[in-house]
Amino acid sequence: MELGMIGLGRMGANMAQRLVRGGHRVVGFDFSADSRVLAGKNGIEPVAALAEAVAALKAPRVLWLMVPAGAPVDSTIENLLPLLSACDTLIDGGNSLYKDTLRRAKLLAEHKIHYVDCGTSGGVWGLQEGYSLMIGGDEQAVQRLQPIFATLAPAADRGWGRVGPVGSGHFTKMIHNGIEYGLMQAYAEGFSILQHKQEFALDLAQIAQIWRHGSVVRSWLLDLTADALGKNPTMHGIAPFVADSGEGRWTLSEAIELGVSTPVIAQSLLERLRSRDKDSFADKLLAAMRNQFGGHEVKKE
Amino acid sequence: MELGMIGLGRMGANMAQRLVRGGHRVVGFDFSADSRVLAGKNGIEPVAALAEAVAALKAPRVLWLMVPAGAPVDSTIENLLPLLSACDTLIDGGNSLYKDTLRRAKLLAEHKIHYVDCGTSGGVWGLQEGYSLMIGGDEQAVQRLQPIFATLAPAADRGWGRVGPVGSGHFTKMIHNGIEYGLMQAYAEGFSILQHKQEFALDLAQIAQIWRHGSVVRSWLLDLTADALGKNPTMHGIAPFVADSGEGRWTLSEAIELGVSTPVIAQSLLERLRSRDKDSFADKLLAAMRNQFGGHEVKKE
Repeated sequence: MELGMIGLGRMGANMAQRLVRGGHRVVGFDFSADSRVLAGKNGIEPVAALAEAVAALKAPRVLWLMVPAGAPVDSTIENLLPLLSACDTLIDGGNSLYKDTLRRAKLLAEHKIHYVDCGTSGGVWGLQEGYSLMIGGDEQAVQRLQPIFATLAPAADRGWGRVGPVGSGHFTKMIHNGIEYGLMQAYAEGFSILQHKQEFALDLAQIAQIWRHGSVVRSWLLDLTADALGKNPTMHGIAPFVADSGEGRWTLSEAIELGVSTPVIAQSLLERLRSRDKDSFADKLLAAMRNQFGGHEVKKE
Repeated sequence: MELGMIGLGRMGANMAQRLVRGGHRVVGFDFSADSRVLAGKNGIEPVAALAEAVAALKAPRVLWLMVPAGAPVDSTIENLLPLLSACDTLIDGGNSLYKDTLRRAKLLAEHKIHYVDCGTSGGVWGLQEGYSLMIGGDEQAVQRLQPIFATLAPAADRGWGRVGPVGSGHFTKMIHNGIEYGLMQAYAEGFSILQHKQEFALDLAQIAQIWRHGSVVRSWLLDLTADALGKNPTMHGIAPFVADSGEGRWTLSEAIELGVSTPVIAQSLLERLRSRDKDSFADKLLAAMRNQFGGHEVKKE
């Protein structure tokens, strides 16, 4: 097939490259000239404007958005809308909030443009290993895109699927990321105990390697953890500061909206927030309270 | 090599069988006649008394204990002690608390018997896939047992290793299980949100299958979850009651002793405890408090 990849960042560029390797024709747009040059070297046809991308494709067109969630998706759609024709298909492959996806799908439906949401997992390893794709959208629209999904996935018959109507792909990916928070936190806590048990002088990288084979906790995240611990067993040079890009917060909001108790996913998010609070007001207040009622000493700054 | 397997339950019987398949001679003891008969069919030499097991092995002997943690380990050691000779080796392959292991190692050292602790992961799948083995003990004692570990592990060169002195194997396995609690809880919470999002009518087994290939959350536990959801998507017939066998509690105690914050592992344990409390006194008291200060209605039993 042929498609336009809008956004050639880390994810978009790799996905475009995997599609080219799979025999598809990919026209790629990015605001960055460097990204366009790199894409050109990898068999993608780079263009410097959305209008060029649209013009380079035969109708009905397929355009894959791989831009940061939020305003960039809205502004890209706004800019594309006058350029597109009825029956074109727009895929949002980013981590959009599914409620935004529902809103955008409604807008595009008014212009008879198909909107498909594709939750995309696999990170920077996806280029070689393939991506796990959670797809939402009309059955016919998704059916037409099958060759693209089959190429992006680890294999034509696995790692991808239409999970439901538009919005359900991003919803499923949001929950995937919520689970990811919990898994990462569980490993991190366990290795932290091992690290603190100095009397055994444990080699964390060795233990991670042992666990990779035959243990109940083996996983791809453990493979990556073993690699990270092997390269840097003391985590030297890495600040204890964990960012987030929103999906954990959304997962928790959704859990609260649905009235579902998800304490571990919630706690995993809160641990990330706490990691950024090096001057905790709550900790100071707790110390002050202990001093108030028990005369316990307060550690001065 | 030759060794005695003391305890032919689910784990012990499978491990003995894997050792026999690997060319080792295994004498197997169990109190249950049925277990002995089954073991006999799988190439293990069954014996009906500990003394017979010891007599059937040439000194210096190797005996692998695969009995439930706690009192059964102590009583087995007590019964074996008069039968053993200096330089024999006793391996505890169960989920013993590492502090018990340190105590037992001290006792056995007084009799010049080597004590090796082997945290064993892999569950009922270990027979075919091999076990992940976290081994604690003197270097020489562990070295001598290498052919046994190489056979039990998924491959001779991976999935097993000496992680440190006696006690460190069980310590590492305890933390492994603590991590396992957190991983399981994270998946369970995520799938619970998906299940509650009725407007998308998601197929949980399909989503688990998609995630198995290429996603960041792929793991062996996810493979098992996908299988469970495929066979029983509504969890029909399964009570929402989660047992534990102690390692989560020990992990949390250890974290508290070391002063390490492990909220997700802690919460995963607490969720199991809560799953068993169908008549929560705390919930009743909370409802009563709301009634007290706000006149909020209390739901009657």
